[in-house]
Amino acid sequence: MDAVPAARAPSLEERFEVIDLYARYAETINDGRLDEWPAFFTEDCRYRVQARENAERDLPLATIRAESRFMLEDRVAAIRNAMLYVPHYWLHMISAVRITAASDAAIEVRANYCIIRTMQDRLSELFQVGRYQDRLVRQGGRLLFQEKLCVYDSLLIPNSLVYPV
Amino acid sequence: MDAVPAARAPSLEERFEVIDLYARYAETINDGRLDEWPAFFTEDCRYRVQARENAERDLPLATIRAESRFMLEDRVAAIRNAMLYVPHYWLHMISAVRITAASDAAIEVRANYCIIRTMQDRLSELFQVGRYQDRLVRQGGRLLFQEKLCVYDSLLIPNSLVYPV
Amino acid sequence: MDAVPAARAPSLEERFEVIDLYARYAETINDGRLDEWPAFFTEDCRYRVQARENAERDLPLATIRAESRFMLEDRVAAIRNAMLYVPHYWLHMISAVRITAASDAAIEVRANYCIIRTMQDRLSELFQVGRYQDRLVRQGGRLLFQEKLCVYDSLLIPNSLVYPV
Repeated sequence: MDAVPAARAPSLEERFEVIDLYARYAETINDGRLDEWPAFFTEDCRYRVQARENAERDLPLATIRAESRFMLEDRVAAIRNAMLYVPHYWLHMISAVRITAASDAAIEVRANYCIIRTMQDRLSELFQVGRYQDRLVRQGGRLLFQEKLCVYDSLLIPNSLVYPV
Repeated sequence: MDAVPAARAPSLEERFEVIDLYARYAETINDGRLDEWPAFFTEDCRYRVQARENAERDLPLATIRAESRFMLEDRVAAIRNAMLYVPHYWLHMISAVRITAASDAAIEVRANYCIIRTMQDRLSELFQVGRYQDRLVRQGGRLLFQEKLCVYDSLLIPNSLVYPV
Repeated sequence: MDAVPAARAPSLEERFEVIDLYARYAETINDGRLDEWPAFFTEDCRYRVQARENAERDLPLATIRAESRFMLEDRVAAIRNAMLYVPHYWLHMISAVRITAASDAAIEVRANYCIIRTMQDRLSELFQVGRYQDRLVRQGGRLLFQEKLCVYDSLLIPNSLVYPV
């Protein structure tokens, strides 16, 4: 039987590693470097975007669900095709990230996010706000998302939700 | 005569303790766990929400004022009653927190906040933005708000301002 | 020939020094203490505000460009005159700051920003969002901006863009 890695306090270096990871994650999406987005995840990752209403009722229903890095790569290809004719910018603002649990096996993180969309000839607008509830693991020296759950506050489902959250 | 505790630089651990405190504060309100909100404050706390115009003129006038943890608990009960029929979500985004003064007696902190409200069938909107000017003290090993001053930029006074800031 | 200072990892203390610098930068502008704004820059600083479209095409065209601290002081004087009759508030929300390069000569930083404007009798609104791509140097013991590039997402050019970003 494998021993469960003991919970421990994150080190200061680890804290900054996590802070930087989220900053790079946001930059990658904001810059439109979508091809690099799946590389933030493990191969067996789980990525979900879920309405808060469903999350709070523990309903399994998710607006977007991917069960592997391959599915994220597939999604990027689909976005590339869909976005060709819609010029707009995205800005992810991520709050302080809080490590809610840490062991030698994984780091669990919670943070808030705002996605701001700027379309041609319009002012910037709050497109989606919510929280991340994530699980990071270390592979090959780097922290990767093994699980990323994005719970969004919005009750309306915007049609461009296909974009990475 | 008591000696005034000497000012000192905050330790790195203390900095993260403060960062995490604000993250948990935001999460608690965002999650709607309002019953836990007063526990962030000392019994003799002072909590005020004040328009920037009044704060800058040093006017004592505050939109909301509580002089004890008990008054905050009372407020939560009032909110619980008022909120029953108004389904909407809140998201607090808090900026980097800056420690403006530290001693063995207290830590003073300044930060900016945005409160984003999401109502049914509407897009998310900036409900209130402003700054915190807070004083933390350690009691029983935990940092608590002895004073929390929320100075908001808005010139309009929204009717749901009763909610925790 | 001068040796180029070797790249190195930033220390934990240095990281917090940078975090605090950006927090104080935002506070100074938010508070309307514009006279103190140029003091964040070196005498030979370069300050630019540029539309993302131009930045991505490597076009030199900038909406605002200053090539010295003196030009920033000049700008503050101009703002003081222009702002007298337009009462409104600004709030800079700055994301986590990421150190992208560090040596003994300079620290390069990237961060996202949101500027929220609140005008009389209106709700707060997203005025400008974008990213900072900055270069800090140490002079007389303090970190100063030697270069500050603000790349904004907005495609509309608001008429109050003269305000510090």
